[in-house]
Amino acid sequence: MKFCSNCAAPLKRRVPPGDTLERWVCEQCGEIHYQNPKLVVGTVPEYEGKILLCRRAIEPRYGYWTLPAGFMENDETTGEAALRENLEEAGARVELSAPFSMVSVPRVNQVHLFYRARLLDLDFKPGVESLEVALVEEAQMPWPEIAFRTVSVTLKHWFADRARGSFTFHGEDIK
Amino acid sequence: MKFCSNCAAPLKRRVPPGDTLERWVCEQCGEIHYQNPKLVVGTVPEYEGKILLCRRAIEPRYGYWTLPAGFMENDETTGEAALRENLEEAGARVELSAPFSMVSVPRVNQVHLFYRARLLDLDFKPGVESLEVALVEEAQMPWPEIAFRTVSVTLKHWFADRARGSFTFHGEDIK
Repeated sequence: MKFCSNCAAPLKRRVPPGDTLERWVCEQCGEIHYQNPKLVVGTVPEYEGKILLCRRAIEPRYGYWTLPAGFMENDETTGEAALRENLEEAGARVELSAPFSMVSVPRVNQVHLFYRARLLDLDFKPGVESLEVALVEEAQMPWPEIAFRTVSVTLKHWFADRARGSFTFHGEDIK
Repeated sequence: MKFCSNCAAPLKRRVPPGDTLERWVCEQCGEIHYQNPKLVVGTVPEYEGKILLCRRAIEPRYGYWTLPAGFMENDETTGEAALRENLEEAGARVELSAPFSMVSVPRVNQVHLFYRARLLDLDFKPGVESLEVALVEEAQMPWPEIAFRTVSVTLKHWFADRARGSFTFHGEDIK
């Protein structure tokens, strides 16, 4: 059972007039409660050819390695979200470059977006959601311990593009 | 006043433990009701150098011209959302090419994403949210009657990239 956030009446599942999908609808105040995917935004922070990774201090995937990233908040741009997540998770100051990868994960209703970024100094330190933060070169990448496929896909594109000598934008789906 | 969608208790604004921002929190069941930006996904559908535009039959910007685009739904990828919106708004079948532009609009908590696309046939027709649908060439673009800045910015990049002979991905903010 779900309730209306405006008037606390019970919600019903039905297709609103002119719509094609079932929604949570309030029959008391008429509000339609849409549910939409969330954006997760982060970076691939590079320093002298190494990539900054965070080891997760939270579930899911506690103890696994990831790129600095997190849910985009209201009132910010994707770039601001990327900078904020770098600071929060890795205490890392970066300069953003172009958007690099965008990966849809419909199973969890998320779209993950990563920017290329240049780490500005070595004064990084784990935030409350990270156990440790480290600069890792390609040969030392802990592939079996990467937390999410969106992250391993993004890192693989990054190393492949670097090897080619040219970075492009990558759109992908994980189904 | 807002209410918990799980238990119908009144919500309070406060900063949850370990968080840095105020959220809508239920003090009865403990649920934190996050609010996040929404993705709007569409295409720049091209046919023999002309672009398919829709004239809006709904507010906001009733009567103004736009690209086929709309809110991404749960359970779909960004590409699936783009194809669905082309069909719903313009009855248009397209083949998607690469993601082309991504524009943050923090004032309305949205991120707009447009793919390049090739219109597959001329059997398009307005959906319920469009007054008319038309193929428009650059010289005839109704610039003062474009519904949204995300759309005019995207169209301007598209024509500039075409003039250069090379399309790239564009990340932008509208503040």
